[in-house]
Amino acid sequence: MEKALLGSNVRAATLFNVGLRWNPGRPSAVRMPVVMTVAKPGTRSSSQWQAIHADIEAHLKKAIPVNPPPVVLEPMHHLTFAAPRSTAPALCVAACELVGGSRDQAMPAAAALHIIRAAAVAHENLPLTDRPAIRPPVAHPFGPNVELMTGDGMVPFGFELLAGSGDPAGGNSGRVLRAIVEITRAVGSQGMVHGQYREVEYLLSRVQGSRDDQEWAADHVWAKKEGDLHACAAACGAILGGGTEEEIEGLRRYGFYVGMVRGMTAHGGGGREDRWSNAVVEDMKKLARKALAGFDAGKVEAVASILDCGIES
Amino acid sequence: MEKALLGSNVRAATLFNVGLRWNPGRPSAVRMPVVMTVAKPGTRSSSQWQAIHADIEAHLKKAIPVNPPPVVLEPMHHLTFAAPRSTAPALCVAACELVGGSRDQAMPAAAALHIIRAAAVAHENLPLTDRPAIRPPVAHPFGPNVELMTGDGMVPFGFELLAGSGDPAGGNSGRVLRAIVEITRAVGSQGMVHGQYREVEYLLSRVQGSRDDQEWAADHVWAKKEGDLHACAAACGAILGGGTEEEIEGLRRYGFYVGMVRGMTAHGGGGREDRWSNAVVEDMKKLARKALAGFDAGKVEAVASILDCGIES
Repeated sequence: MEKALLGSNVRAATLFNVGLRWNPGRPSAVRMPVVMTVAKPGTRSSSQWQAIHADIEAHLKKAIPVNPPPVVLEPMHHLTFAAPRSTAPALCVAACELVGGSRDQAMPAAAALHIIRAAAVAHENLPLTDRPAIRPPVAHPFGPNVELMTGDGMVPFGFELLAGSGDPAGGNSGRVLRAIVEITRAVGSQGMVHGQYREVEYLLSRVQGSRDDQEWAADHVWAKKEGDLHACAAACGAILGGGTEEEIEGLRRYGFYVGMVRGMTAHGGGGREDRWSNAVVEDMKKLARKALAGFDAGKVEAVASILDCGIES
Repeated sequence: MEKALLGSNVRAATLFNVGLRWNPGRPSAVRMPVVMTVAKPGTRSSSQWQAIHADIEAHLKKAIPVNPPPVVLEPMHHLTFAAPRSTAPALCVAACELVGGSRDQAMPAAAALHIIRAAAVAHENLPLTDRPAIRPPVAHPFGPNVELMTGDGMVPFGFELLAGSGDPAGGNSGRVLRAIVEITRAVGSQGMVHGQYREVEYLLSRVQGSRDDQEWAADHVWAKKEGDLHACAAACGAILGGGTEEEIEGLRRYGFYVGMVRGMTAHGGGGREDRWSNAVVEDMKKLARKALAGFDAGKVEAVASILDCGIES
């Protein structure tokens, strides 16, 4: 596995190359005209993306055992489906299909991405003595002790779903192992966890009025929490679907920009989305589409349409 | 992978078959004479077990990156080595060697077991609003927010170490995937996390004076937190070392009893170890040795000696 091709390096390389600066207030070196989205043959509508989500949820519901001990499984079920939807699992499935794989091949990785991210969301919302209430309040039907441990159980469960899909006889063990490594890196201490840490810093500094620097947040929070996660999801889909190295890396770059668009539009500054100009977001979308240049034009819209479909629940 | 061969079922099957009851106050159906431990050829001394631990720690120190961001890696380094030592990682290495594997083959799994368990220990010691201080106090050089997230980063890192050791060209991908599934189950919501939950119940009930039932704790806490963990460790070592299914299951049973001995002697009731009579512990050791009956008598002491060596730091 090539460390040099990890998401954050993709980010450094590609963003620096195009000279994009994370400041919507200043003219950017890249200021493309807004791309009008026109329905094309082979595109996916919002309802088709919803259908992918429904498939992933059905897979998860089947996978989560409902046997005893309910003391553990009820909160796991709750926290798995209470987390706000991410586009990353659906992108994983779509990337797999784009390189010629089947939906089934990507489903365990999509489910793992969903459940591991849901565990991270649960831990983000844990009340801690040294973490003031800096996020919108969420319902806590279970106590902190149960939510902590449930999250702790969900992460290995996600990896179990993926590792268990490896079939030595089917010859996919190597691909599954590679996808596991991808996900461990994207969600670990140099990935999502690091973004979460920076997000607390950012939210605290905004509460205290000491800093409100969206450029910093984009680079340290959204690039980790959304960019790298979506890059990983798309790369995993391509790996599991049997894509070439070129396809895997193209989809990884695409996924990074999809994640940045998500971070900037869905979360971009905790209710201050307006701070990101449409032009900056459209620049991101343009870069995303550019990353898909090497793919069959007739099929590419099935993946590219995620940029314009609101599929968060 | 066969669900029916998981640790807890091994426990149910074997313990019920021998009619052992978890009550040191009552005569047990199995009351073997105390086994005198005599140094045998091929045995491992305490210092040799220490050497295995040192190898695992060296592997971990090399594996944990010391590059930025230090804000994440310093606490990871601290929490990885601050956790009380477990015998499970060393047992994983010894089991691998017993079936003819090399130490290197087991090292990534041993390191993963160490780091994932250390993360669980860190989360056990997190101060939570609904979890009174029911454990001996530990030093918290980092705040709860950092300790929570560091633990969250350590778990995927452990799986990364193991998944990254898979070498498709070397043909071990299937074994590595199987070991990952073993570990996810042993540490997840039906394994270690479940034991942690029950332990909180148990410790709370003791603080409140409402229950002090060691039999219950053995079955619900130590069987999960130590028995199943050691069973998994030994099975993983055997899997990675290329053991037969019979060897894997024999070592799994052995590991379970090793873990129970550890639970009963090192933790057995939070300072009330005296409640477990020597006879009960010796029964466990006898069952452990019985599980090794199918192995080469000349080599078996290298694994069996863990029963009599205190290798916690």
